Amino acid sequence: MVKVAILGYGTVGSGVLEVIKSNNAAIKNKTGEDVEVKYVLDLREFEGDPVQEILVHDVDTIINDPEVAIVCETMGGERPAYDFTKRALEKGKSVCTSNKELVEKHGAELIKLAKANNCSYLFEASVGGGIPVIRPLCTSLAQEEIESITGILNGTTNYILSKMENEGLAFEDVLKRAQEKGYAEKDPTADICGHDAGRKIAILTSLAYGKDVDFDDITTIGITDITDKDFAYAKKLGCTIKLFAKSVHKDGKYYALVAPFVVSSENPLYSVKNVFNAILVHGNMGGDTMYYGKGAGKLATASAVVADVLDCVKHLGKHVNIKWDEEKLAISPIDQAVRKFFVRVSGNDEAAVKAVFGDVEIMKDVVDGEMAFITNEMSEADYKEKAAKAGNVIGMIRVDA
Amino acid sequence: MVKVAILGYGTVGSGVLEVIKSNNAAIKNKTGEDVEVKYVLDLREFEGDPVQEILVHDVDTIINDPEVAIVCETMGGERPAYDFTKRALEKGKSVCTSNKELVEKHGAELIKLAKANNCSYLFEASVGGGIPVIRPLCTSLAQEEIESITGILNGTTNYILSKMENEGLAFEDVLKRAQEKGYAEKDPTADICGHDAGRKIAILTSLAYGKDVDFDDITTIGITDITDKDFAYAKKLGCTIKLFAKSVHKDGKYYALVAPFVVSSENPLYSVKNVFNAILVHGNMGGDTMYYGKGAGKLATASAVVADVLDCVKHLGKHVNIKWDEEKLAISPIDQAVRKFFVRVSGNDEAAVKAVFGDVEIMKDVVDGEMAFITNEMSEADYKEKAAKAGNVIGMIRVDA
Repeated sequence: MVKVAILGYGTVGSGVLEVIKSNNAAIKNKTGEDVEVKYVLDLREFEGDPVQEILVHDVDTIINDPEVAIVCETMGGERPAYDFTKRALEKGKSVCTSNKELVEKHGAELIKLAKANNCSYLFEASVGGGIPVIRPLCTSLAQEEIESITGILNGTTNYILSKMENEGLAFEDVLKRAQEKGYAEKDPTADICGHDAGRKIAILTSLAYGKDVDFDDITTIGITDITDKDFAYAKKLGCTIKLFAKSVHKDGKYYALVAPFVVSSENPLYSVKNVFNAILVHGNMGGDTMYYGKGAGKLATASAVVADVLDCVKHLGKHVNIKWDEEKLAISPIDQAVRKFFVRVSGNDEAAVKAVFGDVEIMKDVVDGEMAFITNEMSEADYKEKAAKAGNVIGMIRVDA
Repeated sequence: MVKVAILGYGTVGSGVLEVIKSNNAAIKNKTGEDVEVKYVLDLREFEGDPVQEILVHDVDTIINDPEVAIVCETMGGERPAYDFTKRALEKGKSVCTSNKELVEKHGAELIKLAKANNCSYLFEASVGGGIPVIRPLCTSLAQEEIESITGILNGTTNYILSKMENEGLAFEDVLKRAQEKGYAEKDPTADICGHDAGRKIAILTSLAYGKDVDFDDITTIGITDITDKDFAYAKKLGCTIKLFAKSVHKDGKYYALVAPFVVSSENPLYSVKNVFNAILVHGNMGGDTMYYGKGAGKLATASAVVADVLDCVKHLGKHVNIKWDEEKLAISPIDQAVRKFFVRVSGNDEAAVKAVFGDVEIMKDVVDGEMAFITNEMSEADYKEKAAKAGNVIGMIRVDA
């Protein structure tokens, strides 16, 4: 019998309790162990909910109980989750979390602390909700040199872009509907400006290269400037538009970026729609592998937390090693990253466009009073220079190779 | 320094050597260990190939060398791979393999033998080539009750079906081209009749439920009867046709089947094209997750073998537990499985169709002299009875829900 405590009885925390209770038989069958939730920590009361029997309000009850081997931190936010996590690890209790903010900021430090105390710090649920991606990246792809990671890591923005595409609606209208349906927060900034996806690609990139990526080093461009006109062009090109969180290792340099991309139907991420997430990883030996599923939601996220719990059960008293050193990974300025760009310009002077961008194929019949084209490959810096020179650029979206 | 031996210097075996050599630095960075190939076993000579320096012809050299901790069995086939594997495990050497035939026939027994000798028997590469699916199924999804597994597990048939769809060609013509290009074997029976996919779904299903699935209990229907007419109807329906290897756990019963299915564009497997494979797993808590990548190929498959090697490196002297008992999993007769069916009938008597199949929507303008429709949900037995009663069925393809 392995005893578990859950910190925070919100959406994910209550889901963790539900998964462990509902699937007790399956868990015992697979691991050979009974797993039981001994405590749930929350400041609130839940009258009438059976959780009341195991509810505690003081984290010390959990920290000081030697019977508790594993702690699920499903509180979210940096404090007090950070302090509680440290205290649990210092007592040799493994911690499994869905808290991407904490993992992104303190992952390397908390793994080191876990190692020193012969326990583990696991966080499958912090990226891609219910999608197994962190464990595959750390185990199944440990033999690969990762050349790129491209993720659709934010369900809200993917939902908005899918609706804009399918129903021809404006960004603001879809956002409003998404908020009404609970798919978007009242303050949607973290989602629509790409910060949420940025934290997640910071975590994945840290794991891919074993060094710490700072979220602040990642350029994040949101989807607020995408319009129905962009989708009209994308359709004409047989493409769609997705918010990609992307990191690339090329010629010894590392790049990381969150931005909308024009994506062709040949890309396996093309057909990832609505609130689904997916992560495409390119290794130097095995090539592309992709991981797909629900990027959020109570039970999907909770299921991933419980997967980590079972990993800890298998390794009680031992450290499940994750290579993520505190040393910083140097992220190169995005200026030097090379790609193609989809560009919209005002007017109809094809010769002027070609004088600046070379022999590109120009689309003139999609939106009145403007033209659009896809550039040849060039660096972000080159693009910026040419766009300034042209002087009539009204929109640009990066193109995924 | 961990020493490895490779049994068989064919496509996969030479790939394993290449991955371990090329990615030595990445492997050391991730695992903290140097991994070196000490021996390659093959009966042939490879004059001029550096492998010659580590080539041995007698398996005893490997079995009797206590320095060899891990053996990669990339010979394929049942014998002598089975004997070599047993001898290695009996000596406490972990075995990592790409040999689906051996895994399907003797997986449970070899895992038990590995456990008894404190070593491991791992086989990620036996299903889905370079796609991490076995490790996620056994670890990331250990907390789930698996309700269904649906896989595109055979690249040859997926390539053939993709070409038939895109180029409107007949089955025989595409098969011939695939054989010329090396995408299909000279004797393509195992692929086109669904046996290869059947062995793979037997392995995945054994792992999902922890008991042994017998390949002979799986109904396998190949793609040889699929025609351009079927694709014409599929297109009209906004669907495609895929060879699915599928197992389902429903109401306490287990079903397993390999057969062509009509697949809607809403299904994430819809856009898996050409030689790519993918596996969609539905858990009772986390819902759908999908794993996608190259189902075959030298380096992709070898990469998966090396992932297993690194798992063994992390667990030297210990058993990496995989729940797969020798007890048989009872597969129910397919007759009781319930689904919809796409049916083509000769003639144009709509009333006669509706008298037998109820109020179905009939398509009349796709192929001259026939009609087609999708039935309501019914059991395979019910369908058979109705088809016999109708008397004019000229084709049937199952429909994925």
